[in-house]
Amino acid sequence: MTPAATRVTAAVLIIGDEILSGRTQDTNLNTIAKFFGQHGIDLCEARVVGDIQEEIVAAINALRSRYDYLITTGGIGPTHDDITADCVAAAFGVELYEHPEIMALLTKRWGDEVNAARRRMARVPDGGFLIKNPVQGPPGFGIGNVFTLAGVPLIMRGMLEDVGPRLKGGAVVVSRTLRVDGSGEGIIAAPLESVAKAHPDLSLGSYPFFGEAGFGSHLVIRGRDPAEVDATVDELSEALRAAGIDKLTAVATP
Amino acid sequence: MTPAATRVTAAVLIIGDEILSGRTQDTNLNTIAKFFGQHGIDLCEARVVGDIQEEIVAAINALRSRYDYLITTGGIGPTHDDITADCVAAAFGVELYEHPEIMALLTKRWGDEVNAARRRMARVPDGGFLIKNPVQGPPGFGIGNVFTLAGVPLIMRGMLEDVGPRLKGGAVVVSRTLRVDGSGEGIIAAPLESVAKAHPDLSLGSYPFFGEAGFGSHLVIRGRDPAEVDATVDELSEALRAAGIDKLTAVATP
Repeated sequence: MTPAATRVTAAVLIIGDEILSGRTQDTNLNTIAKFFGQHGIDLCEARVVGDIQEEIVAAINALRSRYDYLITTGGIGPTHDDITADCVAAAFGVELYEHPEIMALLTKRWGDEVNAARRRMARVPDGGFLIKNPVQGPPGFGIGNVFTLAGVPLIMRGMLEDVGPRLKGGAVVVSRTLRVDGSGEGIIAAPLESVAKAHPDLSLGSYPFFGEAGFGSHLVIRGRDPAEVDATVDELSEALRAAGIDKLTAVATP
Repeated sequence: MTPAATRVTAAVLIIGDEILSGRTQDTNLNTIAKFFGQHGIDLCEARVVGDIQEEIVAAINALRSRYDYLITTGGIGPTHDDITADCVAAAFGVELYEHPEIMALLTKRWGDEVNAARRRMARVPDGGFLIKNPVQGPPGFGIGNVFTLAGVPLIMRGMLEDVGPRLKGGAVVVSRTLRVDGSGEGIIAAPLESVAKAHPDLSLGSYPFFGEAGFGSHLVIRGRDPAEVDATVDELSEALRAAGIDKLTAVATP
């Protein structure tokens, strides 16, 4: 068993009316979930809130106090509804200042056209640090255990590259998937549960599929001890076969 | 201005380790966001939590007490990690019972093979009601202002059909989009903000795009008074033109 001390936790806060109105399908949560997985960090919770200062501040404080890391996405552009910097500063009880490095970038790019809106993007909370933006536009920023990234997926992914090296990762979770064909969850459930109960440190999940090509379920075994995960795949296969379920295939996860 | 009394609010709770591990890209939030929009209901918050009873119960209670409606997705299958029914019952402080209508369905489908796992899907909180499942498998259920639906997107969408008639909707939000080509948010921000400030009941957002075909932004004007939304599109167009931004096109939302 992996010592509990190596468990590192995280949350995601997605900021933006466009997600809650249905205008935009979020994909950042899935990208960040995989990113944390690669770093051995457990993503424990995600929230989506609109562009309302008190809601954003409350969510930042709830999540940053509870988990080791918090990544926010969205709301760092130049328009009036981009209020994430204000909210992060308010959550930490600090002021915003115009970061000279971002001001230099903006001046280089815009010259005399660095207007009030563009200067909004230079604002960083006191005590914060910059997060490189390898795509386009100004950087993101971090303060304490909070990383504030852009909402545009392409830029968000670029910024994650500069978040990775700043994280203290846990033991990486490994995952194996057993595909069951021709049996539904109703018959899989009992052997799956008995094996799950014997391995409380692992996560065993069942994800049914059905369609024209047939039906069945993907059984996913996840854990931090690769040997235990491998042994459990064998144990589960045996338990399923004992219950008469024998169309089993090891497949790449997911 | 639409009276505040007609505003109806909602939240979504997405339940499942597979979303937080990155295995599955959620699409249910976007489907439900559009569904609420069509009913004139403001989706104000969404949360994603894993398959952990205390986390799910806490989220259900936080969201159902704060908003008019809560929809949950996921965790109503037959396997050991499907604990949403237990959590909803715990949140309301009631017991689960085997609903005779679901038991009849299961018996019709499975005969003698209605095992313990399948019977789990017949459990409904005391005082709850059923939500029809037009796709396959057992129904969802509701209690009070909470609707508990399947996580599989196809089934979830089917169940929404039976949620709609149960909702007291607000005034429907209408939305118009103005496309700006060749100008970035840094120059759009000032006229956009001045128009937004003059219309506090509307939501004005800017969603930049860029790619090989050029760059610009979609400006989305949303509100409950169609006449005010239309007038504001004209007002915003005028303000943008006065700022030298004239490549404007009204486009279908989004």
